[in-house]
Amino acid sequence: MRKLRMGMIGGGRNAFIGAIHRLAANMDGLIELSCGALSSIPEIALLSAQDLFLPESRSYTNYEEMIVAEAALPSDVRIDFITIVTPNFAHFAPAMMALEYGFHVVIEKPMTFSLEEAKLLQQKVLETGLILCLTHTYSGYPMVKQAKAMINDGKLGKVRKIWVEYPQGWLSTLSEKEGNAQAAWRTDPSKSGKSSVMGDIGTHAAHLAEYITALKITDVCAELNTIVEGRIMDDDGAVLLKFDNGAKGVLIASQVATGEENALKIRIYGEKGGIEWLQHEPNTLIVKWLNEPTQILRAGTNYGYLSSFATHNCRTPGGHPEGYIEAFANIYRNFALTLNCKLEGIKPALEMLDFPTVEEGVRGMAFIDNVVASSKSDKKWTSFKV
Amino acid sequence: MRKLRMGMIGGGRNAFIGAIHRLAANMDGLIELSCGALSSIPEIALLSAQDLFLPESRSYTNYEEMIVAEAALPSDVRIDFITIVTPNFAHFAPAMMALEYGFHVVIEKPMTFSLEEAKLLQQKVLETGLILCLTHTYSGYPMVKQAKAMINDGKLGKVRKIWVEYPQGWLSTLSEKEGNAQAAWRTDPSKSGKSSVMGDIGTHAAHLAEYITALKITDVCAELNTIVEGRIMDDDGAVLLKFDNGAKGVLIASQVATGEENALKIRIYGEKGGIEWLQHEPNTLIVKWLNEPTQILRAGTNYGYLSSFATHNCRTPGGHPEGYIEAFANIYRNFALTLNCKLEGIKPALEMLDFPTVEEGVRGMAFIDNVVASSKSDKKWTSFKV
Amino acid sequence: MRKLRMGMIGGGRNAFIGAIHRLAANMDGLIELSCGALSSIPEIALLSAQDLFLPESRSYTNYEEMIVAEAALPSDVRIDFITIVTPNFAHFAPAMMALEYGFHVVIEKPMTFSLEEAKLLQQKVLETGLILCLTHTYSGYPMVKQAKAMINDGKLGKVRKIWVEYPQGWLSTLSEKEGNAQAAWRTDPSKSGKSSVMGDIGTHAAHLAEYITALKITDVCAELNTIVEGRIMDDDGAVLLKFDNGAKGVLIASQVATGEENALKIRIYGEKGGIEWLQHEPNTLIVKWLNEPTQILRAGTNYGYLSSFATHNCRTPGGHPEGYIEAFANIYRNFALTLNCKLEGIKPALEMLDFPTVEEGVRGMAFIDNVVASSKSDKKWTSFKV
Amino acid sequence: MRKLRMGMIGGGRNAFIGAIHRLAANMDGLIELSCGALSSIPEIALLSAQDLFLPESRSYTNYEEMIVAEAALPSDVRIDFITIVTPNFAHFAPAMMALEYGFHVVIEKPMTFSLEEAKLLQQKVLETGLILCLTHTYSGYPMVKQAKAMINDGKLGKVRKIWVEYPQGWLSTLSEKEGNAQAAWRTDPSKSGKSSVMGDIGTHAAHLAEYITALKITDVCAELNTIVEGRIMDDDGAVLLKFDNGAKGVLIASQVATGEENALKIRIYGEKGGIEWLQHEPNTLIVKWLNEPTQILRAGTNYGYLSSFATHNCRTPGGHPEGYIEAFANIYRNFALTLNCKLEGIKPALEMLDFPTVEEGVRGMAFIDNVVASSKSDKKWTSFKV
Repeated sequence: MRKLRMGMIGGGRNAFIGAIHRLAANMDGLIELSCGALSSIPEIALLSAQDLFLPESRSYTNYEEMIVAEAALPSDVRIDFITIVTPNFAHFAPAMMALEYGFHVVIEKPMTFSLEEAKLLQQKVLETGLILCLTHTYSGYPMVKQAKAMINDGKLGKVRKIWVEYPQGWLSTLSEKEGNAQAAWRTDPSKSGKSSVMGDIGTHAAHLAEYITALKITDVCAELNTIVEGRIMDDDGAVLLKFDNGAKGVLIASQVATGEENALKIRIYGEKGGIEWLQHEPNTLIVKWLNEPTQILRAGTNYGYLSSFATHNCRTPGGHPEGYIEAFANIYRNFALTLNCKLEGIKPALEMLDFPTVEEGVRGMAFIDNVVASSKSDKKWTSFKV
Repeated sequence: MRKLRMGMIGGGRNAFIGAIHRLAANMDGLIELSCGALSSIPEIALLSAQDLFLPESRSYTNYEEMIVAEAALPSDVRIDFITIVTPNFAHFAPAMMALEYGFHVVIEKPMTFSLEEAKLLQQKVLETGLILCLTHTYSGYPMVKQAKAMINDGKLGKVRKIWVEYPQGWLSTLSEKEGNAQAAWRTDPSKSGKSSVMGDIGTHAAHLAEYITALKITDVCAELNTIVEGRIMDDDGAVLLKFDNGAKGVLIASQVATGEENALKIRIYGEKGGIEWLQHEPNTLIVKWLNEPTQILRAGTNYGYLSSFATHNCRTPGGHPEGYIEAFANIYRNFALTLNCKLEGIKPALEMLDFPTVEEGVRGMAFIDNVVASSKSDKKWTSFKV
Repeated sequence: MRKLRMGMIGGGRNAFIGAIHRLAANMDGLIELSCGALSSIPEIALLSAQDLFLPESRSYTNYEEMIVAEAALPSDVRIDFITIVTPNFAHFAPAMMALEYGFHVVIEKPMTFSLEEAKLLQQKVLETGLILCLTHTYSGYPMVKQAKAMINDGKLGKVRKIWVEYPQGWLSTLSEKEGNAQAAWRTDPSKSGKSSVMGDIGTHAAHLAEYITALKITDVCAELNTIVEGRIMDDDGAVLLKFDNGAKGVLIASQVATGEENALKIRIYGEKGGIEWLQHEPNTLIVKWLNEPTQILRAGTNYGYLSSFATHNCRTPGGHPEGYIEAFANIYRNFALTLNCKLEGIKPALEMLDFPTVEEGVRGMAFIDNVVASSKSDKKWTSFKV
Repeated sequence: MRKLRMGMIGGGRNAFIGAIHRLAANMDGLIELSCGALSSIPEIALLSAQDLFLPESRSYTNYEEMIVAEAALPSDVRIDFITIVTPNFAHFAPAMMALEYGFHVVIEKPMTFSLEEAKLLQQKVLETGLILCLTHTYSGYPMVKQAKAMINDGKLGKVRKIWVEYPQGWLSTLSEKEGNAQAAWRTDPSKSGKSSVMGDIGTHAAHLAEYITALKITDVCAELNTIVEGRIMDDDGAVLLKFDNGAKGVLIASQVATGEENALKIRIYGEKGGIEWLQHEPNTLIVKWLNEPTQILRAGTNYGYLSSFATHNCRTPGGHPEGYIEAFANIYRNFALTLNCKLEGIKPALEMLDFPTVEEGVRGMAFIDNVVASSKSDKKWTSFKV
């Protein structure tokens, strides 16, 4: 094992998610930031690199330059992988180029701007054998993994109902016109893609549902709304779902649920019991049973009752809350452990391999496409196509 | 004011909701149980009457007998109103007869077996000028009334989103075949009506949404499911909603959410803020604001910040939890206060008049009809017809 | 079984606890209010009786008159028991007289003004064989009874630690000088007794600790404080405790915890697990285990996992919250069932006998005495004397 | 600004708190681990260094060697500061030596083995002008800082009551005899100090109370208990407190509260309102008001209503939970920012200077001494001496 070297595209001063990626990549001491093309504005790119103590020689002003230059460095210096944290429309090109130059890729969700791009990336990953890791953060939480493990082990019986909701309130006003840069690109169809609300948060919810249950969505009945006057993209939606085992579901995603923070919540009911997980209290998994008391399962390295997939993703004993950055770091850590194994020719443990990849990226883009198609349709149900 | 005399139809030994009606009617000392036809099985009717210390002379074995006999009693002895707590299919006939004999009526929801019956009752109420009180319990909670008052006062701005959910788990197994009498009639279409889940709990959720917001549902997109194998009626459903001010909503009702109790919850979001109320913690109303801290409003006679509609329905100062029976009792109390005013020729206060009536009963039955129609339709949206 | 007849002393217009006693006594239809001496001010006594629909002939203007008159009525008319809901200083005399005239007694806590009075009452109860029921409301909650049952059954192992706290904020200002009648008598040593905070709420906390654990306090180390300037009695206190099995505890009681409602909470830890119960969410009992997930036990007639002592005190299935008035009503119901059995010469079930009596009243008064003595002492520990 | 270089003493394989220190120091990219003497067992020290990708040349087998060797390195290579994460008895010597060799120090709490050692360190810090940062983690949480700021701004009025509790359950059995290394040294008086429970967690609670209120404890009335049979140190305690403004308090600390995790909680009440903060839900600060609804304040970079001391210590917008490691990282970040300012001759912002230092370390050791003295005394109150 050695410390892996990371290059970053995007994520300069005032970016939101880029900073989170760095906190997450730093935390476990398995990765170091070695270079960056941190902004499309050269001056900001360089100042941002300085902020991060990057050497001038590896502070790039555009990603093409970075990829070419890094590829030319000796193998014990050049980066191992590239993290792409630009807005959605600027994911595909650098990801494709990175793969072509032999770099592994970490990429912020939604994976691309369109489903077509997603499929091209998938094909390239297949061709190259490189790893593409997609940062669906919420699947990095230990208690999400515990839920998955319990369902996989049949603890809840056959899954019948899946309710997933993602209420946010940050777009309750026309903030894209009030200088909010995050709002501006997310509500601009040329940067965000076919759907704002489904791209930004709906894909997280859909991924969580499929990830935990290991089921696939087969049909959707969707309604997308633009609630705030003057906005040019959707900011709210609801989707009825069918899954491939016959289970039914409801997915709610809204950015105009005034006063809500980031209240992603999932409830899954099987024949024998149900689980409930809320991102705001991520170290708790509530498990409900047919005729027995509800249980509160808690994250912690010390809990023998947890699955190894949960404890592997904890850093502290119970009662020392880990949060969003740790969940994010779990994705980086599992990616890094897997990559290190690959570099050393070792087979990674199943717990290490447990991070989202290009497959989940394709399904996420398909989810957006299908929901938008259903929303435009007068028919109740639209078959989910990839 | 005087103590009102109540007769009860249904609610004998082993009945569930009849006992609740009695607890609720007893609590405030405004009503006394004077007679009953407590079961369709004469022997049980009489034993049940004995349990309740009713005089033999007013222990009836069928409702026709009771109505005729009571109508013949002197006015200072005979009952003032009749409470009907039989299964759905047996609401209409006694209610109609009671009204025809000049008795006011309290009736358990859903009001009738069919929309047609509901409309006939509505017409009879109009003709007679008598009061029909419908026990949509959850609208009796003080913090539900506080939510209504805040929205009415424009505190949240224009309402945009309404999410109401009603998860129960008590029908997760085929309990109707395992000797559960409550389950048996509710899942029998000859006793329950067109929809089990929507009749039993969906109407509560729909009523709550319309009651709090003072909006009307205009369109539904519904899916009803029969989840448990062997069951002959639906036990689960989800409905997308449109309201008459343009607001959008989602209604979820399930009796197969394994491990859930009676977790009715409503969230409503307006331009300026949102409210959240959960029946399991009924004395709390959570109010979320755009850029200010969330507030926890609490029920209590002593809270100056509450609406008079909320405090009128509290009996204790904050921190002395009131619950389901008190909410139920609020409906009885408001009905009794209104009726007493009517008997004395006084105009009741608005707070007294605040209980569900035949109008809400008709809308509830229409809700069931529209949801069932939508569920059978391939079209996404069905216009709400009454 | 028959409906029992109750007379009430105190509890007229504007009284707080008297109204609660009536709601509680009404609820189950086992008791009817037959007469009252509802205020020491004759005019208010009569108006209050009118409010409650009492016949003029049994609307008394003082308790002596009431006791004498009722004792002279025929046995099938006269009251069975007398409820005393006056301020503390006016408990003893009517209770004593009631017992002397052969009436059973229900009495609000603290039982008397002084420990001496309490012992005299205890002696009189012994002599007469009558029942004295003390309304320590919080021990009426089903989940409190569940906690007691679990500890009694050894589920938690030997009890080691007991933390009980009772924070209120309603005396955070000098409200006794601002027209608050409840505050006025409670902070007046001539009406309240030796300690305001310990008499009003500390005794509830101490009773709860001894009730649930079946242990007895043996030593106290107390500090009483008068926090609000201008107040002439204590309004806050903390007590370190030793129990007769060697367990240690802490009791906190405050009326100046600004912003708190009535947040009585108890936590008890044994060798194998711990329990937590909070009066604000009374239908939930949290049970913590050594190396297993925490459990949420819930009140409900339908839960097979509960003790019969818990389910006997539930009226509704899980998820239909019962509250403070129901807890109060449980005490009345158990008292009424016991008394009815006694009247019929039947042995009451253990679940019926489960209500506080004169013994708990004596211990409560002793608790006040010992805490006040300890608070005045420089010694750390004071032995608990009765 | 530049990346600071850290050396670590202790914290090798299987250590608990050392790993946490590294995660915290890594997170923000302001610090790199440059060398270590990670265990007193040379073999483990070297293997641990390898795990962390340290170069062999800076993988030391004892701290004296490390300090001497590092001091001899050129200034642009040698470490800037040393973090000491050994058990309590092994804090003083390396800290003293580090300061003597001109290194700044970060040290795990309690600062030393004895109060005497603490005072010597304090003197040395004064002499050298170096920084000693003490990792009282819980004061690193943003909502703790918000509480402090609100009290400092007079929002709650004069502070009257302080209740702080720290229940843990991990020593509920005799785990020191069952191979638990963490338990073994903490319950060994030769390694832990005068009190186990007060050294390990009581000092955190006391620090939190003094930190948030800016008050000082003046008197204690303590009881320390050894609950688990066979244990040779205390594992539980309760302390009544007086503060220098006249406020009264209660501190509870227990390691035998079976089933509890790390449930540090503080409640502070002033004339106008109260605050409540619970470490298990650290991003929430509950603020209770006299006659207004309770407020839920939430951590988040985006909340304009928070103090700059709170937002400075957030990394994410509301609803992206930060936890224990982030709180820890805040101490490292503030220390690193302060040290960087010092190195560049800039005056640090007040928000940067907000981390615990040697002064808090001395008070923590004095707290242990005073509590132990009080526990042994028959007198109720012991004056707090430093």
